[in-house]
Amino acid sequence: MTYCVAMTLNDGLLFASDSRTNAGVDQIATYCKMSLFEAPGDRVIALLNAGNLATTQAVINSLKAPDDSEPDIMDMSSMFAVAKHLGRILKETIRTSAEGGLRQESVDYSATFLVGGQIKGEPPRLFMVYPQGNFIEAMPETPYFQIGESKYGRPIIDRVITRETPIAEAVKCALVSFDSTIKSNLSVGLPIDLALIPSDSLRVSLRQRIEAEDPYFRQLRDYWGKGLRKVFNDLEAPTWLPTPA
Amino acid sequence: MTYCVAMTLNDGLLFASDSRTNAGVDQIATYCKMSLFEAPGDRVIALLNAGNLATTQAVINSLKAPDDSEPDIMDMSSMFAVAKHLGRILKETIRTSAEGGLRQESVDYSATFLVGGQIKGEPPRLFMVYPQGNFIEAMPETPYFQIGESKYGRPIIDRVITRETPIAEAVKCALVSFDSTIKSNLSVGLPIDLALIPSDSLRVSLRQRIEAEDPYFRQLRDYWGKGLRKVFNDLEAPTWLPTPA
Repeated sequence: MTYCVAMTLNDGLLFASDSRTNAGVDQIATYCKMSLFEAPGDRVIALLNAGNLATTQAVINSLKAPDDSEPDIMDMSSMFAVAKHLGRILKETIRTSAEGGLRQESVDYSATFLVGGQIKGEPPRLFMVYPQGNFIEAMPETPYFQIGESKYGRPIIDRVITRETPIAEAVKCALVSFDSTIKSNLSVGLPIDLALIPSDSLRVSLRQRIEAEDPYFRQLRDYWGKGLRKVFNDLEAPTWLPTPA
Repeated sequence: MTYCVAMTLNDGLLFASDSRTNAGVDQIATYCKMSLFEAPGDRVIALLNAGNLATTQAVINSLKAPDDSEPDIMDMSSMFAVAKHLGRILKETIRTSAEGGLRQESVDYSATFLVGGQIKGEPPRLFMVYPQGNFIEAMPETPYFQIGESKYGRPIIDRVITRETPIAEAVKCALVSFDSTIKSNLSVGLPIDLALIPSDSLRVSLRQRIEAEDPYFRQLRDYWGKGLRKVFNDLEAPTWLPTPA
């Protein structure tokens, strides 16, 4: 499985993805699930993907090196056009794989993408693209999207993230969210890839890979775990418990 | 949807369930998902259920008022036998509903149960019974089971619960777990039903229904939310962020 989260904040866009892929428990590998397309000063586009690895690699390769007959996302005039194009390629890729398959019912070729960024002349935008090729855009009331194993790590995001959240807080929140997910789900694993795209900068200001031994992440996990435990211990016990319980 | 959790601790068994059922978003109702079978001094059995409401009600009715040809769980000599019987009835109920159905593919008749308790002569035991009729038992290394929307509320349980956790701590933990789930998922809702079965007591020592206005639960949610937020705010920001980010 996978866990990816993207946030669209007043200060910019934040992308984070884990890097574990697995086909069963005996085929576990590390793959980067983040792709960046950058022409500084003109556009910057980030993709996160969850789902079938063959599908996601095929889609990303099509975007990186389009056929002569295909439009290039580096020429498109809006993020909407990019999301629409991505949706079309994704849907076609899944259909082709399914048609070519050996009718093995158990193979799931589907994949989901988060695509966000900024093209000169537009504000930053963020989309979630479904395997069916359709997509939705993040709005001020819901400034984030998650794909993959999203539930373990969602409560802290629900509590913290609004459009106004500063980037540094959002990075902390994303890392705490990954910590909760990694603790509870074997199919999500380190390293975590992070990217920041400040609003109107039209460039990637930070591209960070966080490994297991990363001192900041280790400290964050440690403080968070101990802090949580302390808050929990400080909660009063219910008065209505029988004695002895 | 539903969220239920059951824990088997050295001090006893704890059961908790939400009470929201929904078929789509326009058919939301409150149903108790906890059933208790008690013969004080001889046995006490608790059931939690998630899944198709018709299926779960049919199963529980069969257990409460068995046909003359059916064995009675109040006569069985082990919790293993109870789990096995429950599994058989559950599987049959689902099969009968599916066969009688109008071939509406979208109807899911399945359901999952947690069943735990103690029968005189045995230690307390806890099982998860699948729609296929098979089941697993909680072991010291994994002293809890969840069914339904389990992921949002799992991280705090993973951090806190061991066999040694005192009942009062476990109740706190279960309520925090419900709070996280209810915050992130509309299909899980108050009131929460709680039951405690102290080890070797062979009775239910507490049966509590926690409504939205319950002062203890409100205080717990408030303290937990604020405490979490404080721990989060106290986490240092990453030093490797670009300035301005």
